[in-house]
Amino acid sequence: MGRWEPNARERLERAALDLFVEHGYDATTVAAIAERAGLTKSTFFRHFADKREVLFGAPDLLADLLAGAIAAAPPPAPPAACLAAALDAAAAASFTAERRGLARQRRAVVASSSELRERELLKLSRVAAAMAAAFRARGTGDTTARLAAEIGVLAFGLAFESWTEEGNARPFTDIAHETLRDLQASAAALGA
Amino acid sequence: MGRWEPNARERLERAALDLFVEHGYDATTVAAIAERAGLTKSTFFRHFADKREVLFGAPDLLADLLAGAIAAAPPPAPPAACLAAALDAAAAASFTAERRGLARQRRAVVASSSELRERELLKLSRVAAAMAAAFRARGTGDTTARLAAEIGVLAFGLAFESWTEEGNARPFTDIAHETLRDLQASAAALGA
Repeated sequence: MGRWEPNARERLERAALDLFVEHGYDATTVAAIAERAGLTKSTFFRHFADKREVLFGAPDLLADLLAGAIAAAPPPAPPAACLAAALDAAAAASFTAERRGLARQRRAVVASSSELRERELLKLSRVAAAMAAAFRARGTGDTTARLAAEIGVLAFGLAFESWTEEGNARPFTDIAHETLRDLQASAAALGA
Repeated sequence: MGRWEPNARERLERAALDLFVEHGYDATTVAAIAERAGLTKSTFFRHFADKREVLFGAPDLLADLLAGAIAAAPPPAPPAACLAAALDAAAAASFTAERRGLARQRRAVVASSSELRERELLKLSRVAAAMAAAFRARGTGDTTARLAAEIGVLAFGLAFESWTEEGNARPFTDIAHETLRDLQASAAALGA
């Protein structure tokens, strides 16, 4: 029971997403996830607080990651460079080639339920608030901080959508940087 | 019971907001709101589907109003002019001098509860999605449509915050147009 299980977290994640796709999120129990992974419920709860955490990660994990990258960018970096650094940090942590299949499943599961879509929107609102706070802490004015954060969340969302499309083989960072450049061009046009 | 009551909707709204501020949103019943307004529960339900609708309006009312103004702007109007028209439409419908006191109370009630704050964020997400769709319908590219919609929601939110501050006596439209210009300047800087 308490012993170390190789790749337990990843096995649980794969089992959970397979079951969410097969039977729906609501109908899938933690017991079923653990059984499918060949592990115990207590192993599940050593890795995830609950079933929802498999889909959404620990609260504020993504927000802290993106805001942390903005805070860590060298002081003279303009907001757009901070956003690029934030997207790279996200890519390195979670949006790797090995995780693209899981991300596709996750996207389908979240899209299938209005409650999960709402939870996703609220998560992205927290991410935007954390990014705006990180910009303000760098001395960026409030209006620009809020707008830069929204652009970061839009870039993240559009890049994730494109990256998880069937057949797309480009790395997340390439897509994210291109999306960010497109958004900057749109911002320049809207600001003109 | 079924007879016409003068200003029933406004009396119910004022009674509800007073009670939400005094006793909290959760502790306030529809029966108490009707009693405070000197009206019946059935009169309440002729004006509002439920207690939540007093705070958030009918689903999609604000989204339809803002998206409708974007759709109705003359074809050559650039996105920023469409956003200004949308903010003016909102101002004319709901953000009048007579309603500023109610809006202040509403802001305090929503801020007091994490559930109500989440509902507000989800409402603004629906507004952003509706505005983006209205821009796409005008032929605006998807990236610019989404960014313009986020700028519209930011302008709306920042203007509402400022308009409902104690002591602020400027009309909503003045504040909203200034906020929009600030956001455009930020967009130009972020796009550079």
